[in-house]
Amino acid sequence: MTKSIKLSSGYEMPLVGYGIWKVPKENAADSVYNAIKLGYRHIDGAHDYQNSAEAGEGVRRALKEGVCKREELFIVSKLWNNYHARPHVLEMAEFENKNWGVDYLDLYLIHFPIAQKHFPMSELKYPCFWSDAAQKTVAPQVPVPIQETWQALESLVISDSNPRGLLRSIGVANFNASLLYDVLRYAKIKPAVNQVEHHPYLVQPGLIAMCQENGIAVTAYSSFGPQSFLELKNKRALDVGTLFENETVVRIAKAHNKTPAQVLLRWATQRDIIVIPKSNNRERLAQNLDSTGFDLSAEELASISALDKGLRFNDPADFGIRIFA
Amino acid sequence: MTKSIKLSSGYEMPLVGYGIWKVPKENAADSVYNAIKLGYRHIDGAHDYQNSAEAGEGVRRALKEGVCKREELFIVSKLWNNYHARPHVLEMAEFENKNWGVDYLDLYLIHFPIAQKHFPMSELKYPCFWSDAAQKTVAPQVPVPIQETWQALESLVISDSNPRGLLRSIGVANFNASLLYDVLRYAKIKPAVNQVEHHPYLVQPGLIAMCQENGIAVTAYSSFGPQSFLELKNKRALDVGTLFENETVVRIAKAHNKTPAQVLLRWATQRDIIVIPKSNNRERLAQNLDSTGFDLSAEELASISALDKGLRFNDPADFGIRIFA
Repeated sequence: MTKSIKLSSGYEMPLVGYGIWKVPKENAADSVYNAIKLGYRHIDGAHDYQNSAEAGEGVRRALKEGVCKREELFIVSKLWNNYHARPHVLEMAEFENKNWGVDYLDLYLIHFPIAQKHFPMSELKYPCFWSDAAQKTVAPQVPVPIQETWQALESLVISDSNPRGLLRSIGVANFNASLLYDVLRYAKIKPAVNQVEHHPYLVQPGLIAMCQENGIAVTAYSSFGPQSFLELKNKRALDVGTLFENETVVRIAKAHNKTPAQVLLRWATQRDIIVIPKSNNRERLAQNLDSTGFDLSAEELASISALDKGLRFNDPADFGIRIFA
Repeated sequence: MTKSIKLSSGYEMPLVGYGIWKVPKENAADSVYNAIKLGYRHIDGAHDYQNSAEAGEGVRRALKEGVCKREELFIVSKLWNNYHARPHVLEMAEFENKNWGVDYLDLYLIHFPIAQKHFPMSELKYPCFWSDAAQKTVAPQVPVPIQETWQALESLVISDSNPRGLLRSIGVANFNASLLYDVLRYAKIKPAVNQVEHHPYLVQPGLIAMCQENGIAVTAYSSFGPQSFLELKNKRALDVGTLFENETVVRIAKAHNKTPAQVLLRWATQRDIIVIPKSNNRERLAQNLDSTGFDLSAEELASISALDKGLRFNDPADFGIRIFA
């Protein structure tokens, strides 16, 4: 049984999830099915990952075989930038919910605080910042305020007065503090979660504190830092080297007889930060899930936090959209 | 004649202004009068500085004596955090405009993207993050979205259809890129200016680029870095030491036969960034104004930018409000 955290919406969210960014469409059904068999109850997907329908197939197979019940699962998806206008929010939430095919989504996030030109789904180019398959033209920004997008999401939340809603909880991703404060000012339903890049090379202590002070749970993506970005040939990732061989991380892992990956995950979860690691290796997948059963000392947590370099690997500024500046 | 930059509103804004933060009420009239006699045409004030009425007295004295004409002057003030709700925006803009007493304000800025509890002016405690004179209780945040505040400002802009407006241009201060993008989405009148902390220890190249790409002029405050914060006993300022003795800055100043202060200002203005230095010393005041008549080489500009430490001295996080996180 994985530990969980209670969201402001009242629902429990498992602290360790299985993130399916970059899980190929062809493997997604099996990968998700196997993760659930292994004990994962939280799956983190997104329209942008282009594998929701297949992931949903894996989920439904596990449910059909009785591996667990729907209410034990926590399914996350995300709204992409081209669909921020109210009618597109409604269309995409419905589309994603159908893709997963398990009645409702547990959490639906605004993927980025960026509103780009709308394209019909059939014309959308992936990965999704682009408007052309050659990845040369970034889709222009359009004047759809975050407030419009947020209020559209609010209209989809399941409640006594909205039993036909699609979403149990709603939240955001890649939001910084000043923008989050602004959402809190007009939100009738507050963001339950802010999912952000968070690892020892990008600690963002002020943002984490702001979220936690305001009852917004934090999900960390890229918990292993540069790891996910090496295959994307991200220069900053290639330059800095892997966290798995970092001296501090290795020393602490040895002291606890754990893997460096487990230490990196525990560094987050012990501070109430949700993690969504991915692995293509069954043993590592099991180790990732089994990473909340030991505790780091305050000194160990601090020495990992001290590795902070303010180094962001996933930055829309690389496409000319400077949301973190 | 000082150089100026053309704002998106169509008005010209002098590149070098006289900033009156921390100019005591008692000296403000004379200080501003003398600055105008010395050649300053741009005065940067704010309700928070508690000296607008006196500064206005100095401006009117200079106008009366014919030192310059009203249309040659560029008067800036700012809306404080307790007045973000629409009726308070209108009340405060009127109040500030009366304080200055010169028909209209050239530029009025949202001082921070922070909405705090309203107090009648008579009960407001200064400096203004507080709700009590003992400076122990930070005034709580209130749910007034930036959009409400911005639209209230828009309603005050002078135009053919609004000849009784009070403001020629409107803008923001202390906004980061993701929040600015959101303002751009709903703004009918785009922010003409974003005034931010900017000096070689806090360069913020992404934010500057975002503003300039979007036609938003940048005003730098605290161009001398720690200097303004030493008297406030800011620990980060005390620790880092003065930029006036920085080796790179001193070397470049000597090469051009200029003061370190002039080099720091030119580093900004040469990149189209407006500056608003203050000095209590007449000679230095003149030197600051006379800082656009020489050019630094590209290498010199870069070597000053390379001093960046990401070190912010003016941070509401010190009061628990983490807008930059």
